[in-house]
Amino acid sequence: MPKISKKGQMMPESPIRKLVPFAEDAKKRGNSVFHLNIGQPDIKTPQIALDAVKNNDIEVLSYARSEGSEAYRIKLAAYYKKNKIDISEKDIIVTTGGSEALLFTLGSITDFGDEIIIPEPFYANYNGFSTANGIEVVPIVSSIDTGFSLPEIEEFEKLISPKTKAILICNPGNPTGYLYSKEEIEKLKALVLKHDLFLIADEVYREFVYDGMQHYSIMSETGIDQNAIMIDSVSKRYSMCGARIGCVVSRNKEFIQTTLKYAQARLSSPTYALLASEAALETPQSYFDEVIEEYVERRNTLIKELKKIKDLKVSTPKGAFYCIAELPIKDADDFAQWMLEKFSDNNETVMVAPASGFYSTKGSGENQIRIAYVLNKESLIRSVELIKLALEQYKR
Amino acid sequence: MPKISKKGQMMPESPIRKLVPFAEDAKKRGNSVFHLNIGQPDIKTPQIALDAVKNNDIEVLSYARSEGSEAYRIKLAAYYKKNKIDISEKDIIVTTGGSEALLFTLGSITDFGDEIIIPEPFYANYNGFSTANGIEVVPIVSSIDTGFSLPEIEEFEKLISPKTKAILICNPGNPTGYLYSKEEIEKLKALVLKHDLFLIADEVYREFVYDGMQHYSIMSETGIDQNAIMIDSVSKRYSMCGARIGCVVSRNKEFIQTTLKYAQARLSSPTYALLASEAALETPQSYFDEVIEEYVERRNTLIKELKKIKDLKVSTPKGAFYCIAELPIKDADDFAQWMLEKFSDNNETVMVAPASGFYSTKGSGENQIRIAYVLNKESLIRSVELIKLALEQYKR
Repeated sequence: MPKISKKGQMMPESPIRKLVPFAEDAKKRGNSVFHLNIGQPDIKTPQIALDAVKNNDIEVLSYARSEGSEAYRIKLAAYYKKNKIDISEKDIIVTTGGSEALLFTLGSITDFGDEIIIPEPFYANYNGFSTANGIEVVPIVSSIDTGFSLPEIEEFEKLISPKTKAILICNPGNPTGYLYSKEEIEKLKALVLKHDLFLIADEVYREFVYDGMQHYSIMSETGIDQNAIMIDSVSKRYSMCGARIGCVVSRNKEFIQTTLKYAQARLSSPTYALLASEAALETPQSYFDEVIEEYVERRNTLIKELKKIKDLKVSTPKGAFYCIAELPIKDADDFAQWMLEKFSDNNETVMVAPASGFYSTKGSGENQIRIAYVLNKESLIRSVELIKLALEQYKR
Repeated sequence: MPKISKKGQMMPESPIRKLVPFAEDAKKRGNSVFHLNIGQPDIKTPQIALDAVKNNDIEVLSYARSEGSEAYRIKLAAYYKKNKIDISEKDIIVTTGGSEALLFTLGSITDFGDEIIIPEPFYANYNGFSTANGIEVVPIVSSIDTGFSLPEIEEFEKLISPKTKAILICNPGNPTGYLYSKEEIEKLKALVLKHDLFLIADEVYREFVYDGMQHYSIMSETGIDQNAIMIDSVSKRYSMCGARIGCVVSRNKEFIQTTLKYAQARLSSPTYALLASEAALETPQSYFDEVIEEYVERRNTLIKELKKIKDLKVSTPKGAFYCIAELPIKDADDFAQWMLEKFSDNNETVMVAPASGFYSTKGSGENQIRIAYVLNKESLIRSVELIKLALEQYKR
């Protein structure tokens, strides 16, 4: 029998999705499951985007341009300008989701055995994309006790080797909810310039910033045009996760030219989703105002309720729609599965993502879970109540 | 300045798309360009698929299941059964185009430095997907003089090394139009069993088979359940290239489980396109009958016209919608570019794909072009006339 690759064996299972079969079994037994495990918002997609697809007049569903149409990229550049990111349409390659943007980026800047440094906990699929590219993630620990702020630059420097190609951050952070300050970005800037590294920022949660704070993009920083690569996506901004449209943005022309070759090899992003994404750029500000207001309420509700649980530790997220909670148990993987398999109250239970999959350091985050506050307030209150009940009943 | 990866530098430009800027310039100068360079059919997408998207009632454009919904996979399995391919929905992972199906497959079965053997000329992007995975394409020459039939098995065996992981065929072939016989598939079967290799068949042109011949899938062959991997896509079957929906099919459970991990890392295929693809399975047989009739006429027209050109060599395709033509010139790359830059007749010119990009052996196919017969008869006749005129004027 021919063999699966080592790489394929090493590919991690998704910590967000691996418990899905247990959730399905729970539902088959008649339980409702509150899904706090996945960043799939329940927020309505902007009507203008939905309408663009419903009213399309496509007769031959043909390929789009590999890099995205010029018209769409020009509109995207205008959107970025409004967000204080002054780039040209030539600095953009449209991709099939932020996922593909990351894959193209890693392919364009790393070779087999290279390393990238990522503050952990980090978006779990960075592990998968790195494994798929045959490179190593070198994690640098950020702590729940500092709200997951940027680790000291000296700690980064200790980890830089001749194989280090890039530092990757997610800002605002999934799963931490942390928002990097201008000062933190400037520290990273100095570091990547000193060591000639790429700085990749996954900024797909740009709009989800709370308490009057401002998002500061690495693309707003001068002097790192050759180093800075931004990852973006329409998924969260417009509650369009199923579109699968994202982009890579960089002023480094050689990098963009290389990324284009990856884009050409896969021919095109999905055409219907491009229609929706282009139309979504006309979404009125009122949509975002309402969405942000809703998320702030959800966050406040979630954190308030979580803090009622004895011995539970949580830091208040400043952005995105996730938080990490440290539970008074040893094995959150087992607990999350147990909640689906063995626990229910009034035929209801909760699905969360065990946080261990968001760490690369073995043994880290084993008593933590990631909660996505993508449900309405009532559901969040009930979900935390269920977690509280479950913790009381769970004895291991 | 941080450096682009070696892999990124090695990524090939698309031979199908690299001349696009020259075509755009030709159009800016007022010329019409007949596009024979790309397999983008002008055939209308089935109405039932278009309607499924126009009539959708999505309010939150959410993620699909990473492996594709069970409902869609069950319907896909039924479609395959009708095509004498007896597989279960559990043997299917839905992908974002055939492109992603190939990427997942190579990721699941090869490691850095491994080799796959491919009869050449082959679909140019196999080079790109291989480079992206850090593996080597080992080409085995098939000749225009035999219509690009399967090379002798002894020639394959000479190329097998400890690093060889798979043999990859495209059936019917892009760019050759060759249809492998049952006997040829059985020879490959014996070979992969003997050497414990995977056999990957890209069967996206399954429906496009002419002259009363029958397509014979590797999945119809018994005894190679652990070896056989089929790549498929809705792009050509339903003239839905812009959907970006494909799939990987294999009875090898470990392989499918590995592929699922790649699918989970990129979360989901595009949701609108999945609606269209599921609906397209209800396309009536009359649609295909008409399409095939149209392509047979186009092929016959194209080949008849091409054969009028002195010293041009072409083999009659048995399937797909491409043919390779050998021109009485030395450098088809230069000729193709010259047709766009310097040549026009009545403000019309032609864009073809230079065939060199479909070969992996340096120096091969340099006097060949690939023609996609995706335009109507009148356009094909005029296109060949333009090629004839261009050859007369082209002197290098």
